[in-house]
Amino acid sequence: MSASQTTDTPVLATARRARTAAAALAPAPRTVRDAALAALADALTARTGEIVTANAEDVARARAEGTPESVVDRLTLTPERVAAIASDVRDVIALPDPVGEVRRGSTLPNGLELRQVRVPLGVVGIIYEARPNVTVDAAALCLKSGNAVLLRGSSSAHASNTALVTVLRDAVAGAGLPADAVQLVPGLSRESVTELMRARGLVDVLIPRGGASLIKTVVEQSTVPVIETGTGNCHVYVDEHADLETALAILVNSKAQRPSVCNAAETVLVHAGIADAFLPRALEALAEAGVTVHGDADWQKAGQTAGRTVVPATDDDWEMEYLSHDIAAAVVPSLDAAVEHIRAYSSGHTEAIVTADTAAARRFTALVDSAAVMVNASTRFTDGAQFGFGAEIGISTQKLHARGPMGLPELTSTKYVVTGDGHVRR
Amino acid sequence: MSASQTTDTPVLATARRARTAAAALAPAPRTVRDAALAALADALTARTGEIVTANAEDVARARAEGTPESVVDRLTLTPERVAAIASDVRDVIALPDPVGEVRRGSTLPNGLELRQVRVPLGVVGIIYEARPNVTVDAAALCLKSGNAVLLRGSSSAHASNTALVTVLRDAVAGAGLPADAVQLVPGLSRESVTELMRARGLVDVLIPRGGASLIKTVVEQSTVPVIETGTGNCHVYVDEHADLETALAILVNSKAQRPSVCNAAETVLVHAGIADAFLPRALEALAEAGVTVHGDADWQKAGQTAGRTVVPATDDDWEMEYLSHDIAAAVVPSLDAAVEHIRAYSSGHTEAIVTADTAAARRFTALVDSAAVMVNASTRFTDGAQFGFGAEIGISTQKLHARGPMGLPELTSTKYVVTGDGHVRR
Repeated sequence: MSASQTTDTPVLATARRARTAAAALAPAPRTVRDAALAALADALTARTGEIVTANAEDVARARAEGTPESVVDRLTLTPERVAAIASDVRDVIALPDPVGEVRRGSTLPNGLELRQVRVPLGVVGIIYEARPNVTVDAAALCLKSGNAVLLRGSSSAHASNTALVTVLRDAVAGAGLPADAVQLVPGLSRESVTELMRARGLVDVLIPRGGASLIKTVVEQSTVPVIETGTGNCHVYVDEHADLETALAILVNSKAQRPSVCNAAETVLVHAGIADAFLPRALEALAEAGVTVHGDADWQKAGQTAGRTVVPATDDDWEMEYLSHDIAAAVVPSLDAAVEHIRAYSSGHTEAIVTADTAAARRFTALVDSAAVMVNASTRFTDGAQFGFGAEIGISTQKLHARGPMGLPELTSTKYVVTGDGHVRR
Repeated sequence: MSASQTTDTPVLATARRARTAAAALAPAPRTVRDAALAALADALTARTGEIVTANAEDVARARAEGTPESVVDRLTLTPERVAAIASDVRDVIALPDPVGEVRRGSTLPNGLELRQVRVPLGVVGIIYEARPNVTVDAAALCLKSGNAVLLRGSSSAHASNTALVTVLRDAVAGAGLPADAVQLVPGLSRESVTELMRARGLVDVLIPRGGASLIKTVVEQSTVPVIETGTGNCHVYVDEHADLETALAILVNSKAQRPSVCNAAETVLVHAGIADAFLPRALEALAEAGVTVHGDADWQKAGQTAGRTVVPATDDDWEMEYLSHDIAAAVVPSLDAAVEHIRAYSSGHTEAIVTADTAAARRFTALVDSAAVMVNASTRFTDGAQFGFGAEIGISTQKLHARGPMGLPELTSTKYVVTGDGHVRR
């Protein structure tokens, strides 16, 4: 043990300190963790000045480097935004404590008492891009669930993250918990991320939050278990028996209410039996919403008839997560053909069916294998806050451990506690 | 899609067929899956002759290669053993169906109905060693839970596994489900295992069952999510306030009732306050059970006084999973020191405390971070059958997805089904 410690790189030394902090944090009762969260919210408010000052450095550098304004906006912290982040932390305090929940239990025939109890995961690593609010959100959710957190933000938010983590650590230590429960991963190089990904045994799970290429890299290279999040190639299927008004409302809302997020729709599939009635109206509604349609032959033909532009779709369009005012569009001969298309191209995030037919709704929900399946509702509802979870660390698109919006219970593991009075096996 | 299919290797083609089979299997109702299991049990009985004949090839080859008799015994199938395996399959039929269980659900404030429903994982890969019974057990559990299974047994059991899988596939097809729900991974080379480990997107989870080196390889090289199973460096801690008779019974049972399995104890830690009373009696009881003690200085001294042999323990002993009639033994100054030792060396499988003190029991269960913590009970109880799960696909020693004995629910994922009547986000 001592040998490995003396040869630790800065990243591994950080992870080892997180592990020690996690051991101290795990048995801390809810009152202590909640008090730390309250201290943390207060400190964010009290030290808003130094946070905003540090953030201004990052913002100035981003502007100087010609960063697009939408990215600069996500990076920017104002006093109002810091106040909102602090308020989110206070909301986390009120959430139910996942730690210690007895998930199942029984008395076995031999009298042994068996309980499966929720416990913290241990050390959670978050790799994310230039959104400094994630720094605080992730730290608050990990603290609430009894986990130590290792934060690896982007270099473009480094000054902001450093200031935030300083404030967070001071608050955590002031509340009597180890400051090392919240740490920035040292170093801004790719190597430091690689080291984090290979720290199996020290880090219990890595959650990448960001673009598809970041997530792909982590999934392929990490020996630490990963939870894949956030890639959303979501589909809206308009069934033969859909109400047209309902279908239009759900399609436009799914696509255009907020196109830059993972639960926005990227493809619409329309049953051939309703295409003649639906396509002209859909083209009109999408055009009004400023959406460009990348359509198959049927949609192109409908576009010509209606005098609306339809960009011819290529195979790439079916796979595309546009995150913009674009949508791929196809006509399918049947519900099963829609399911087949979804199986081939979906990222497994959210798919919606619009139908008035109970049998179609039942078949679609049974056959579609995604984290969320919507029946007569917008894809935009796949979200921790919308689902009533109160907070969300990401939306998992994998099947192991957690699938869909991840709240506090998804940041826990379990252990079995078995109590006897001298029981031995025969 | 078609391009990747034409360039598929045999392993990837097999995985792709499994994926297609999984899609057909997932919506099959319980009656259909249970009928397939019944057909499978019947077929094992009816075709015992061809199974035993194929197995005789493997056994003869193993003997000719000088394989130890204990391994040959595990490899051997007799008509009685095949009957027992078929009977185990019938037991699986009676287990509750995990698929379709609603794990949580609510009506959201806006009227949306939210349900989290258990669904099959999809394609489960099992990599295992020379125990042909695993072939049937794994196939039965996967079928029951609606999953397709890819079986990668060892070359030493290849004839047996081929015969068994032929019988299984015929039975599954006869019951109207796709035969490709049960497949052997083609090829006996290491490369075929490597390909299986890289088939992310086709295989949903890999479960290695076998020795530590197999598990380590899979964990380090797989891009498919892995569930780590079965390494057990389990500890028994005898507290200052332990009843001596209880402690002796639990220690001997944990170590010697079946030393070759993962829930057998490998280290005993004794509180210094009870060492003088306990060590002489423990040495006697362990010697009677045929156990060799690898002790620290305190145990060595007690051995000299009692005239019992104690092998001096080295650092390696604390890390060792002996799986034999050997045990590492140390005296610790406190419960917290025992916890620290366990944190440093345990594989996170099972640890037991023997104590009459409620505060000590509470502290030990709170601080020890393992899949199972026993209070006044043998480590040998960490087992799916003992826990009342009816069947077990392995014992997970990792924290994500499943921890401890894995029954049918651990072979499932979940999806959210959200039902509205035209709901859109504002």
